[in-house]
Amino acid sequence: MKVNQTKENQLFIGIDGGGSKCRATIYSAEDGVIGTGVAGRANPLHGLSQTFESIQLSTELALKDAGMSLGDSKGLVAGLGLAGVNVPRLYQDVVNWEHPFADMYVTSDLHTACIGAHKGGEGAVIITGTGSCGYANVDGEHISLGGHGFALGDKGSGAWLGLKAAEQSLLHLDGFAEKTILTEQLMNHFKVNSALGIVEHLAGKSSSVYATLARMVLECANQQDEVAQAIVKEGAAYISELARKLFEINPPRFSMIGGLAEPLAPWLGKDVIAKLSPTLAPPELGATYFARQQFGSKVN
Amino acid sequence: MKVNQTKENQLFIGIDGGGSKCRATIYSAEDGVIGTGVAGRANPLHGLSQTFESIQLSTELALKDAGMSLGDSKGLVAGLGLAGVNVPRLYQDVVNWEHPFADMYVTSDLHTACIGAHKGGEGAVIITGTGSCGYANVDGEHISLGGHGFALGDKGSGAWLGLKAAEQSLLHLDGFAEKTILTEQLMNHFKVNSALGIVEHLAGKSSSVYATLARMVLECANQQDEVAQAIVKEGAAYISELARKLFEINPPRFSMIGGLAEPLAPWLGKDVIAKLSPTLAPPELGATYFARQQFGSKVN
Repeated sequence: MKVNQTKENQLFIGIDGGGSKCRATIYSAEDGVIGTGVAGRANPLHGLSQTFESIQLSTELALKDAGMSLGDSKGLVAGLGLAGVNVPRLYQDVVNWEHPFADMYVTSDLHTACIGAHKGGEGAVIITGTGSCGYANVDGEHISLGGHGFALGDKGSGAWLGLKAAEQSLLHLDGFAEKTILTEQLMNHFKVNSALGIVEHLAGKSSSVYATLARMVLECANQQDEVAQAIVKEGAAYISELARKLFEINPPRFSMIGGLAEPLAPWLGKDVIAKLSPTLAPPELGATYFARQQFGSKVN
Repeated sequence: MKVNQTKENQLFIGIDGGGSKCRATIYSAEDGVIGTGVAGRANPLHGLSQTFESIQLSTELALKDAGMSLGDSKGLVAGLGLAGVNVPRLYQDVVNWEHPFADMYVTSDLHTACIGAHKGGEGAVIITGTGSCGYANVDGEHISLGGHGFALGDKGSGAWLGLKAAEQSLLHLDGFAEKTILTEQLMNHFKVNSALGIVEHLAGKSSSVYATLARMVLECANQQDEVAQAIVKEGAAYISELARKLFEINPPRFSMIGGLAEPLAPWLGKDVIAKLSPTLAPPELGATYFARQQFGSKVN
């Protein structure tokens, strides 16, 4: 497509960068998707140059998808939601990047996810995928809870559910816990019958490997496996507490995001379920709303 | 020294290889130390070439310490206790190594630690240092419990105590737990006052970094900090259970090894403390006993 830009029809690109992938979407002034591109991970905590490469590549793919030329990035205003930029040093590194855009506005991936979930409005979100965390943006104030990473918490997340299942299976194999559907399924999953076999499959592995076990834990809990139920209940109790902490600052709206949001919902407190609203837009559109707000306040 | 060897005065070298270092000691026929050398880590799970380099280097240093020449390694019979060789593939890799010794006998570091602790005899050991595990060798049968690594267990270990303290501090900073002596000391230790500060110091760090916090947890427990006491009690209860499992096969003797063995002892079950005997010799001497047994049965 041919781009003739005025301030009114300024094109925006929303970019959501995280630990596994980077998604870029070019939006029209009416939030219509013009083109989308996906590249590898873009988490400044895990490397700045990789982050910039993934942003660049996903942008190029989005431009191509839109039928635009690579040079057209110079006409786009970018909104970036990136993991890790809550670390001030990393935020500064990203802001100082010689980016290929007309303008670039950076905030955390939690912030853009929250803006997206509430379609530009304020509110609270809990993200439960590989990791878990809570975020709220009310009256211009942000609070962020949890999300300390696999080793240090992320209770109730997919990786945490998988870890607890593996720990339980190892306790069983060492003679400290009963055999249950869960411990059997985990051993079948890896086709092993010893503690050493489990350790060989999981030791030193990333959180995403542990998270592949999460659905199994939830299924076993739904099959009334008591060990699986205890794990899911403990994780869900933490997520409910996270939600109640966010409610303390009276967010006008609350959503849950991530692969575990749906299967975990029935295990949450009734007060939490009662406040749950669907997410209205994806994080890339949230990033675009953020860029529009910042760009608008700059122009005026 | 000049070496004139006969079968009777055959010299042995005992090598204890693990995740942080490799220690080699050359012993006389009467268990006298002739020379000792220490090199970097030698855990086949973390790399074979590094393991062989560390064994080679610690041996060279021991030979030098003994006033012997490097070529004299060809006259030594080596006993190796190595982490990771309970994985059959890795055991085979080590055994196939073109080693610099007259003969080489390989077993797990737990086995040689156990032989050393009981000065050549059978028995049981629990190792609580950075990690935790239990091992018993009775009537030629071995059992090994725990030791699944930092991510998957090692409850009651130094790394586990440190991890629990960090988790508790993060829960406090997120508003889910009270401030206590422990949470304060942990934040002072890292000179931080936010969850992000703790995460920056610990995310992605090795178990040995977490283990540096263990003494602080034990000190706080001794100062009646309830949170620290709960952590230490949970860890010690697991170690006591580990000991009781080992006692089931009636080991003639039981010792505890590792940096946390002494400070953790008062928190163990009275039945466990009652059976505790001091370790009689270091793992390298255990490795030498092992090599002597194997060499003797080969010669005869």
